[in-house]
Amino acid sequence: MYAEVAGFYARQMRRLDEGDAEGWAATFTEDAVCRLSTRLEAMRGREELIAGARAAATAIEAAGELRRHMTGMFEIEERPGGFLHVRANTIVYATAASGASRVHQVCTCTDTLVRGTKGGRELLVKDRWIVVDGT
Amino acid sequence: MYAEVAGFYARQMRRLDEGDAEGWAATFTEDAVCRLSTRLEAMRGREELIAGARAAATAIEAAGELRRHMTGMFEIEERPGGFLHVRANTIVYATAASGASRVHQVCTCTDTLVRGTKGGRELLVKDRWIVVDGT
Amino acid sequence: MYAEVAGFYARQMRRLDEGDAEGWAATFTEDAVCRLSTRLEAMRGREELIAGARAAATAIEAAGELRRHMTGMFEIEERPGGFLHVRANTIVYATAASGASRVHQVCTCTDTLVRGTKGGRELLVKDRWIVVDGT
Repeated sequence: MYAEVAGFYARQMRRLDEGDAEGWAATFTEDAVCRLSTRLEAMRGREELIAGARAAATAIEAAGELRRHMTGMFEIEERPGGFLHVRANTIVYATAASGASRVHQVCTCTDTLVRGTKGGRELLVKDRWIVVDGT
Repeated sequence: MYAEVAGFYARQMRRLDEGDAEGWAATFTEDAVCRLSTRLEAMRGREELIAGARAAATAIEAAGELRRHMTGMFEIEERPGGFLHVRANTIVYATAASGASRVHQVCTCTDTLVRGTKGGRELLVKDRWIVVDGT
Repeated sequence: MYAEVAGFYARQMRRLDEGDAEGWAATFTEDAVCRLSTRLEAMRGREELIAGARAAATAIEAAGELRRHMTGMFEIEERPGGFLHVRANTIVYATAASGASRVHQVCTCTDTLVRGTKGGRELLVKDRWIVVDGT
């Protein structure tokens, strides 16, 4: 379980860092809700997730930066109905074209994961709540 | 074993970051010894741990900051007598009210864990030695 | 598998951080190739790895710094022939003599691991490709 969850976050965040908005959105359920403390409106469903990821990628590229997400500190609980409740921390690093790296954001994540019905029964995010420290 | 240890550190550190001094101290044995390279005196027992965590929380709040601990790089060894010897690194991040985040401290931890006798035989810290880089 | 891989990286990186060039090089195969985006030439074999680690340690000491590697975000795939293909991120932290810590480098690693033939069939790096963000 731990290995599966940790591997899921690694794959999901890496897609985001590599600018694969569709691949990233595909790690959420069709009806997923993703809320961030930095956005007034939740993102609902894959189309909104793709649009959100693309807008972020455009802004990061305009800033001449690379971003990397490091997620860890997992607390994993199985819940009735096949849900996994996961608490995690994510640190987002930014590197400028000059090569200088810094901590961009410190985030806490509270997620509900479910298993997909197609293919390998892979994990998917159904609900995500991200609090960015300092917002 | 790895999952249990990683989950233990996630839970323990999260309690500290959330200001739950009692909950944090409860993850140590009654007779635990916790030494830090930044303190002359070791903390011994839960009362001293609670006092130490409260003093830290007060200082952090006075500074208008949030702190988050990210622990990883676990090397876990089973030792005779049911002890676990764990080496780990912890990075402490600080976020100011302005929203700016930074690396606060880089720490190496050498811990001895034991299993509690009550309830779920959960892991507890019996001995902790933290070296903060640069001190 | 996850625990073994995570433990391997913890041990390997800790040897580097502690200045144990020989111990670090011993976690690679005899014919290992290690490429970095910051070096024109690959390091090939343990002698070149030892020389590279020593040169780095000398430069870090001259700068009056300590370095710590935190590796995570593992994606692990078993490949034919007993190889493990591992993607990971590594953040390198630097702490100055003054005590100030910072993010030094953000790296992505793509490794091929194999099992050694001597002793405990431990993991060894056969091929490593490190991209340092911003280079």
